[in-house]
Amino acid sequence: MARVAVVGAGPSGLAQLHAFEEARRGGAEVPEVVCFEKQSDWGGLWNYTWRTGLDQYGDPVHGSMYRYLWSNGPKECLEFADYTFDEHFGKPIPSFPPREVLFDYITGRAKKSNVRQNIQFDTAVRWISFDPVRDTFEVTVESRPTGSTRTEEFDNVIVATGHFSSPNVPEYPGFATFPGRVLHAHDFRDAQEFAGKDLLVIGSSYSAEDIALQSKKYGARSVTICYRNAPMGFGWPEGISEVPKLDRLEGRTAHFVDGTTRDVDAIVLCTGYRHWFPFIEDNLRLRTDNVLYPSDLYKGVVWTANPKLMYLGMQDQYYTFNMFDAQAWFARDVVLGRIPLPARGEMERDIASWRERQDTLGGPADDIDFQTDYVRDLLEDVDYAAFDLDLVREHFNTWEHHKEESITGYRDKSFSSPCTGTTGPVHHTPWWDEPDDSLGAFLRTDA
Amino acid sequence: MARVAVVGAGPSGLAQLHAFEEARRGGAEVPEVVCFEKQSDWGGLWNYTWRTGLDQYGDPVHGSMYRYLWSNGPKECLEFADYTFDEHFGKPIPSFPPREVLFDYITGRAKKSNVRQNIQFDTAVRWISFDPVRDTFEVTVESRPTGSTRTEEFDNVIVATGHFSSPNVPEYPGFATFPGRVLHAHDFRDAQEFAGKDLLVIGSSYSAEDIALQSKKYGARSVTICYRNAPMGFGWPEGISEVPKLDRLEGRTAHFVDGTTRDVDAIVLCTGYRHWFPFIEDNLRLRTDNVLYPSDLYKGVVWTANPKLMYLGMQDQYYTFNMFDAQAWFARDVVLGRIPLPARGEMERDIASWRERQDTLGGPADDIDFQTDYVRDLLEDVDYAAFDLDLVREHFNTWEHHKEESITGYRDKSFSSPCTGTTGPVHHTPWWDEPDDSLGAFLRTDA
Repeated sequence: MARVAVVGAGPSGLAQLHAFEEARRGGAEVPEVVCFEKQSDWGGLWNYTWRTGLDQYGDPVHGSMYRYLWSNGPKECLEFADYTFDEHFGKPIPSFPPREVLFDYITGRAKKSNVRQNIQFDTAVRWISFDPVRDTFEVTVESRPTGSTRTEEFDNVIVATGHFSSPNVPEYPGFATFPGRVLHAHDFRDAQEFAGKDLLVIGSSYSAEDIALQSKKYGARSVTICYRNAPMGFGWPEGISEVPKLDRLEGRTAHFVDGTTRDVDAIVLCTGYRHWFPFIEDNLRLRTDNVLYPSDLYKGVVWTANPKLMYLGMQDQYYTFNMFDAQAWFARDVVLGRIPLPARGEMERDIASWRERQDTLGGPADDIDFQTDYVRDLLEDVDYAAFDLDLVREHFNTWEHHKEESITGYRDKSFSSPCTGTTGPVHHTPWWDEPDDSLGAFLRTDA
Repeated sequence: MARVAVVGAGPSGLAQLHAFEEARRGGAEVPEVVCFEKQSDWGGLWNYTWRTGLDQYGDPVHGSMYRYLWSNGPKECLEFADYTFDEHFGKPIPSFPPREVLFDYITGRAKKSNVRQNIQFDTAVRWISFDPVRDTFEVTVESRPTGSTRTEEFDNVIVATGHFSSPNVPEYPGFATFPGRVLHAHDFRDAQEFAGKDLLVIGSSYSAEDIALQSKKYGARSVTICYRNAPMGFGWPEGISEVPKLDRLEGRTAHFVDGTTRDVDAIVLCTGYRHWFPFIEDNLRLRTDNVLYPSDLYKGVVWTANPKLMYLGMQDQYYTFNMFDAQAWFARDVVLGRIPLPARGEMERDIASWRERQDTLGGPADDIDFQTDYVRDLLEDVDYAAFDLDLVREHFNTWEHHKEESITGYRDKSFSSPCTGTTGPVHHTPWWDEPDDSLGAFLRTDA
């Protein structure tokens, strides 16, 4: 029997298991699917841990999740078309849920499709190589609690390890002698650690935006955000400000390139993540920046140099869970032989045409159009449940406008589902005034 | 030509390179020795980095070193017999140097013997396996800046990666909701981060002792140390106290098993390290607790199941640099065929007899005797420079008494060199009153 290895049981890995299971339930003959998950539980980044750095078995902590994280995009834009929020929660819920609610939703579908049996938890993939003679992958894994390693053969490997786990950590002059904590967003866990502190945030993307806001919300005295190229320019609440690029630290004094200075107590590097696959031999390794259409992946999924290898979710992301679904369905159908792959040259030409268009994109609206078209392109080839993709596109644009209007208020808006048409109710408490991020608090209706 | 891989260029790896170089300079024919070092510079733990968690290439940060660390044992007890402190510094220096001074010393010998040319920096070993047919090791390494991987063959592998890098991180109830930082000593960098804070330190060994003292020295409001079995019982300065085992956290309140509570701002887990070799197939992997005589290593060095594999420095340590030297000389002479190895059964009987004695040890004085005898046993077989091992043993016992007398004052004492007989001068400033740990401040004589 053919064997498929899925690396990682986060949103994209679970989507892959679900996709195979759906085919099986539909009567198809599917290969043996084995998912290796380093963590003790599923959910990937959505599986919160208080740990930082190295975990209980000495491996890098996968999670970059922090307490009090609420979705920064409408849930309607990431809804599973075959397992709606209405179905999971039994009622409409507001559009911007906190982490625990999204974890519950993701894993709810996985429970329903009973894919936990495919997953080997606490099992780290240590090395993947391809044997061209046997035409199979050799996958060496370690059972972390026992430390025992073994090598198994697989016909296909699907890498679903995400790309928000391995921090990109630049050094600035003076870090080695700064008398406070310097951390990457990857190790940020609880904004309350910084209550009463003057915080320096380096970066100008989602992490910087959210960690700055969140730190202020939970009591930081001030947050100074320094940007490399341009400020985010939102209407920040009092106590948050943006300044140009950091030049150096001298003691606890941050010097910026415009000559201004600020005394700070801690520094959070919101400087992004790296696509990082230390467990794969280098001729199988995706190398890409965080872009909408990485090179070397046909349909954003298939490794052109060896199409038995696939990657999920390696794009810069407006779309998330539903895009992972589209990719997982596509990968599954390639494995099942339902989707024939063209010759390598043709795959590369297809990638090139997407990447040419990528070079012309002029801003968020263009990006959203591009990724919408990418998802549509995938969906044309597979039997994934129908949903209103143009409505999702529209929602993304509306959401961008809401953020411009109020960076503290955009999470109080409601959107309609592209799957059911239901509009999410307004949350009982404005996000800025709600410290409690628990599922119980979010779902209660008596407030 | 035979090839030897040395993994790691810290104190033990550098000792190994130095040992081979000494043999070569003495006229011996030595194999090609290639050292793979993950970090960008040599010195292992003594190569300080401000980084925590994952490093600039996404690998676990090797270092557990923190700012303001001073040796916690007399330098005379770790002196290289063939490269004395007097030789390196050109004058006698005090007995308890800070990190930068020891780094300078370790790397000073390595510079003199010109072994840097053997080291491939920024090169991580990803996987080591043994091919019984070819009778060689296959070592897969990655050049981290480029991400390129390659596999090379070696006749011998000597693992010198240390065992104070991979933290042992237990979880206590309430960690996930504690509103402050929870970190392992591995990620502790700068005591000033905790100035004005109430700190909880969990543990009762060297890290707990030193991080508690250091945090108080640099301004922590209070330090509460909780122990599992017994308190360290030193005469702590005001503001440091010991309490029984932690039961749980509730919010920021620590509850101990004796029913007492303490509100704390941050928690440092001084709960030790794990011997951790994720890059070696499991039948070659040393599995041991931190003990004076690990099983499976003949003379504490040779992997009995495959004597072409050796490990350095894997013992619990009173002796350090000079013990690593003795081990490196021994390993070298095994590789060179100067020391014939007995049959496996005999090696195992030898290990067993040491481990039987280990079971009888009743405290620090016994431990010191045991490890002194172990080092003496190694030295009998090799041509390492002579030094007064019984004086080192005596110094260790004296040092233990000094710690009992004054935990803040023991670093102000002086010891005599077992190599040169020189007695270290008293430092110009008592350790407790000296915030400056720089080499310049330590060596100045005009104070």
